[in-house]
Amino acid sequence: MVHNKSVVFLKHPTEFPVVGEHFAVQAKDLNPDLKENDVLLRNLFISLDPYMRGRMRNATNSYVGGFQIGQPLNGSGVSEVVESKNASYPVGTIVTGSVGWEEYTVVAGAQGLRAIPNARNSKIPLSAHVGVLGMPGMTAYSSLKIIGQPKAGETIFISAAAGAVGQLVGQMAKRLGLRVVGSAGSDDKVEYLLKDLKFDAAFNYKKGNILENLKAAAPEGVDIYYENVGGEQLEAALEVMKLHGRVIACGMISQYNTQEPYGIRNLIQVVGKRITIRGFIVSDFAAECSADFAKDVGSWLANGEIIYKEDIAVGVDSAPDAFIGMLQGKNFGKQVVKIADL
Amino acid sequence: MVHNKSVVFLKHPTEFPVVGEHFAVQAKDLNPDLKENDVLLRNLFISLDPYMRGRMRNATNSYVGGFQIGQPLNGSGVSEVVESKNASYPVGTIVTGSVGWEEYTVVAGAQGLRAIPNARNSKIPLSAHVGVLGMPGMTAYSSLKIIGQPKAGETIFISAAAGAVGQLVGQMAKRLGLRVVGSAGSDDKVEYLLKDLKFDAAFNYKKGNILENLKAAAPEGVDIYYENVGGEQLEAALEVMKLHGRVIACGMISQYNTQEPYGIRNLIQVVGKRITIRGFIVSDFAAECSADFAKDVGSWLANGEIIYKEDIAVGVDSAPDAFIGMLQGKNFGKQVVKIADL
Repeated sequence: MVHNKSVVFLKHPTEFPVVGEHFAVQAKDLNPDLKENDVLLRNLFISLDPYMRGRMRNATNSYVGGFQIGQPLNGSGVSEVVESKNASYPVGTIVTGSVGWEEYTVVAGAQGLRAIPNARNSKIPLSAHVGVLGMPGMTAYSSLKIIGQPKAGETIFISAAAGAVGQLVGQMAKRLGLRVVGSAGSDDKVEYLLKDLKFDAAFNYKKGNILENLKAAAPEGVDIYYENVGGEQLEAALEVMKLHGRVIACGMISQYNTQEPYGIRNLIQVVGKRITIRGFIVSDFAAECSADFAKDVGSWLANGEIIYKEDIAVGVDSAPDAFIGMLQGKNFGKQVVKIADL
Repeated sequence: MVHNKSVVFLKHPTEFPVVGEHFAVQAKDLNPDLKENDVLLRNLFISLDPYMRGRMRNATNSYVGGFQIGQPLNGSGVSEVVESKNASYPVGTIVTGSVGWEEYTVVAGAQGLRAIPNARNSKIPLSAHVGVLGMPGMTAYSSLKIIGQPKAGETIFISAAAGAVGQLVGQMAKRLGLRVVGSAGSDDKVEYLLKDLKFDAAFNYKKGNILENLKAAAPEGVDIYYENVGGEQLEAALEVMKLHGRVIACGMISQYNTQEPYGIRNLIQVVGKRITIRGFIVSDFAAECSADFAKDVGSWLANGEIIYKEDIAVGVDSAPDAFIGMLQGKNFGKQVVKIADL
């Protein structure tokens, strides 16, 4: 028997979710009652990601299963095995996998778990396994390569460039010899892009006219647009895009919490400039990219050739507000919640 | 010396072009004065195509050169060589190539001309060489194959389905075992799609709600959208598109003559459904598809396995009104102008 606090999904929001109305922290006793091959995890970090807003919709055609009313929200986490009936995951193993937004999670059959080798002695922080070394990192790595087809000398524009995916896309594009332009929602983030990540240009999308700022930052146009935001930034990107431009449609966070979506008025640019816009989810590219991703990004991170900023909220109680803050762009770097110390 | 009537470009329109203001028929004497390798053509048919509206823009980044103020408009034609200083194109040869919207055109060096073999004795009408056997046919054939990646059992939705490109796309998709749904702007055209072209479903986009009509015509969703129209039809197509859907962005005629473009509000579907939207121009696919196109479509047409409807205006004087009518959807079938009899 353990005492467990969880963030439970209460109701489908139509605009920004509200704590207490759409999700809330609830505490109850948990009797693990493990069966053959099950494990009980003590969660250390959970990942908060924009795509989760889509799982809050009352939709039938979402590409990831929706959250279940009355159940804890869930997503990627880093956890310690504290009880085990599975020989592959003995007590003390540190794992990543899908867990609840909660202190403890029972994983039936240890389904989808992956042990992190040498976790207790690594210089790489455990939280990286749900960020730069996890789903957001793999998202950036695979989609830039496969959809973006980047070539040295080209220009890439990345929206939400200081976010979980954007900061890695930018650094990878720099390594490949591209000119890298980013947007973010605060002057601090813009400074991070320019000084720490060595972007060639960056602007605060909340200041001045987005199209004018983008034109000034990319005067010769854009070959690749890494799309995390949608709305006005997508419209501006299409406007400055060059012939045979590619739009990597990773997400459109500006459209997730509104019932009045922004109307994109210049899609005709797709015809005239022979642009390709392609949406994806990271699992589309797993077979093709997983091995190279782990090798490349793992070594870059270990060698200090790339850096990765995280925004760490503390305690399961902080998760709902941190999630809403992320949807509003208040996070600075990849948003995680630290549930417990190792 | 010949007397020549031409349609001359006068001014860049911002909305629908107006005869007399933006283009007008002008007559003058033409002294061919041919140099080595030049030919003088007597034009028989000229092609009017929606993409030409883009060439009327005062734009620097158009993918085809803009029309020149004070010069005849130009495009594909079928012509007879009536004077020649080029041994490859003796007098009497029937050719296709780029010609003016006019009765006679001098083609320096016979640049870009192609002789039509057996032209005087073929059962295939000469006008087909600017339609189903020309640029529109090649457009349909190559883009359906390369961007569409059609598979038997899938559903395709084609807007402007009775037009120059759409009618061929639909018949090719039927041959490949797809379920074919089309839209058009009159009940006559809808009847043509259903009865003559054997579409599985079709609707008049001017009657009722486009999204509801499309949902009724494609209740299980759409795998491929062949996009000729843009605006509300694109929005509806995205709404009913299935996972991994493809949008073949051929044109967006609804957006060509307006300064207030329609805002597409549901592009977020591209992310959730992992849709690809790709623009192109026909020359992108020439190397890969030209030979197969000529063989396949040539034999289907000769054998009566496909049909092809043309809307033939008569006389160079009719070209401006026919062009405006085409932009308004008044043509029924591929729009050509018959300039002269052979």
